[in-house]
Amino acid sequence: MYYVNEHIKNCVRIFPEQGRRDYLRLDMNENPEGLPKKFVEEVLSEITPEYLATYPEPDVFMKKYADYLGVLPDNLCLTNGSVMAIRYIMETFVEKGKKVVTVAPSFEMYWVTCAMLGLEHVGIDYDENLNIKVSDILDAMDADTDLVVLLNPNNPIGNVYSQEEVRSVIEKAQQVGAIVLLDEAYHYFCPNTFLGFIGEYDNVILLRTFSKLCSIAGLRLGIAVSNPEIIHYIRKSIPGFEVNTVALLFAERIVDHPELFDELTAIEQEGRSYTKEVLEQHGYCCDFQQGNFFFVIPKTDPFELEKKMREKKILIKTFRKDLLKKYIRVSIGSKQVMQQFLDAFLELDGNE
Amino acid sequence: MYYVNEHIKNCVRIFPEQGRRDYLRLDMNENPEGLPKKFVEEVLSEITPEYLATYPEPDVFMKKYADYLGVLPDNLCLTNGSVMAIRYIMETFVEKGKKVVTVAPSFEMYWVTCAMLGLEHVGIDYDENLNIKVSDILDAMDADTDLVVLLNPNNPIGNVYSQEEVRSVIEKAQQVGAIVLLDEAYHYFCPNTFLGFIGEYDNVILLRTFSKLCSIAGLRLGIAVSNPEIIHYIRKSIPGFEVNTVALLFAERIVDHPELFDELTAIEQEGRSYTKEVLEQHGYCCDFQQGNFFFVIPKTDPFELEKKMREKKILIKTFRKDLLKKYIRVSIGSKQVMQQFLDAFLELDGNE
Repeated sequence: MYYVNEHIKNCVRIFPEQGRRDYLRLDMNENPEGLPKKFVEEVLSEITPEYLATYPEPDVFMKKYADYLGVLPDNLCLTNGSVMAIRYIMETFVEKGKKVVTVAPSFEMYWVTCAMLGLEHVGIDYDENLNIKVSDILDAMDADTDLVVLLNPNNPIGNVYSQEEVRSVIEKAQQVGAIVLLDEAYHYFCPNTFLGFIGEYDNVILLRTFSKLCSIAGLRLGIAVSNPEIIHYIRKSIPGFEVNTVALLFAERIVDHPELFDELTAIEQEGRSYTKEVLEQHGYCCDFQQGNFFFVIPKTDPFELEKKMREKKILIKTFRKDLLKKYIRVSIGSKQVMQQFLDAFLELDGNE
Repeated sequence: MYYVNEHIKNCVRIFPEQGRRDYLRLDMNENPEGLPKKFVEEVLSEITPEYLATYPEPDVFMKKYADYLGVLPDNLCLTNGSVMAIRYIMETFVEKGKKVVTVAPSFEMYWVTCAMLGLEHVGIDYDENLNIKVSDILDAMDADTDLVVLLNPNNPIGNVYSQEEVRSVIEKAQQVGAIVLLDEAYHYFCPNTFLGFIGEYDNVILLRTFSKLCSIAGLRLGIAVSNPEIIHYIRKSIPGFEVNTVALLFAERIVDHPELFDELTAIEQEGRSYTKEVLEQHGYCCDFQQGNFFFVIPKTDPFELEKKMREKKILIKTFRKDLLKKYIRVSIGSKQVMQQFLDAFLELDGNE
């Protein structure tokens, strides 16, 4: 009989729901409406049969994105969604059996990837008021820790870390010989960044994605930003053609039109303040932190409510874990999208 | 200091050339012209901002492709190019330090991936007439062998294996507890297939790609076909969103129009017979085997010729290894493309 890797064999996987396109999608923090139609049409009009038939070339986009960030191309590695950056980073910088420290809950692929690769995942818990103590993260880091991950703002709980908190984690990581991965998937919704730490410390990797504000989750583009030595190692661990040619073209045109970042942020901000106002008027206790999503405690059972919303063709997120089971998480779209959400939500959750 | 995986650190990587879009590309076995323009425009017209903003959903395409192959969706796993299928398969089914047997030369990512993952690559050599003995492959397989790879037809040398040869490899693999990976990247150019072995043996994986005949190398789509147990393990080792949404849409529409397979094959066949005829008229010794590429021994120095062809904006492939250094490899396109190649080649290679 053939060999099967035990870690992969024992890894529990839940695959994403299919058929979501028929719904208003407020469950996975995508942009429910996407990029402006005219922009999409213009970019698509550039695509030729030859362009699709040719292996992807990342360098033109990489140079433009480096300029946009104020770094050099040697500071960047592009991956097939940031989930693959996470994987390549773990494969490269975490020894089998060693520890990866994250807060819990956070993006679930951190621990799924640990499980696949045979790494020990250490999750630092939030308290019942959804607060996390950075001192707990520091205490969990020891000589067996190879990687510490901070998603800022975190998801599903949208808390952010201060520069000092992150600095303390990086410095403790230096002492124990670990790398710190700062995942900025929700950057732009939360404008503060830890990009500056890339040059200041030798053990910091920043992650960005084009799936959230940039609205091309379907195309798969993640970007690791770090010092040239770390990037050199990550690049050694990826295939020759990692990011597809259409993702590269869209990302290049987005960076060519930086006003898009402001437009998309403004749309989300408008949807956000409108939703907050309406929910508060109806006496809801909501937690609008810094991602493109919020928590709210419904008046009726969250799981029942999710089902009813689904019948109205709207997807929202519920949680099975005790800490979060009283909440629903809702992704934020434009005011128009949020109006559609609120109409259904307020009715189905027993409001007049 | 942080930990760095020794295998990745020591892995030698050569990254693909950039700026190839300005050339006629006959060096990497892409389709130089791509899919029919009208077809591409029709598929692109389906793409909306929402479609790009939504995480990819592989199931609709997977069902159609399974029907097309005459298997079930549970027999398939889609990956970001077949290079990632190779990687996931090696991660899942090859124990660290164990052997992967391939012929040499073959697709270079087999051994790059072995090097990255810390696996032992065993390459079985061709003789000087570019013949390979299957008995040598069988002899190399032992209790430490976890995977045997046969690319059929092989690349760069386009030889094919008979059903009996492949059967003997599979049966020896069963004895030693190995899996056999049958890479059919160049299927359609070479219509015979080993798909039937998937159901007949429990240790066979077949690979297909949409990069070659299907002409969407830029989009990245590879497909592993095997029994449900093997596919179950491979799926456990991949991220939730592996193949992008535009690759899935194009692949679905290609399968919706199976006449495309015949049209694309006919275009290549016409380019192939035309090129063979013209080269033979000029006294060339060529080796047209069964991929969308051929070997020819130029009358002048291959490396000088490559340079001169590049100045004429045409890319061809040369080889540094002794076995192949007298040849060039040329990808086959339409008759029109091959006319362009032949005009430059015949002139620059010292013909009248």
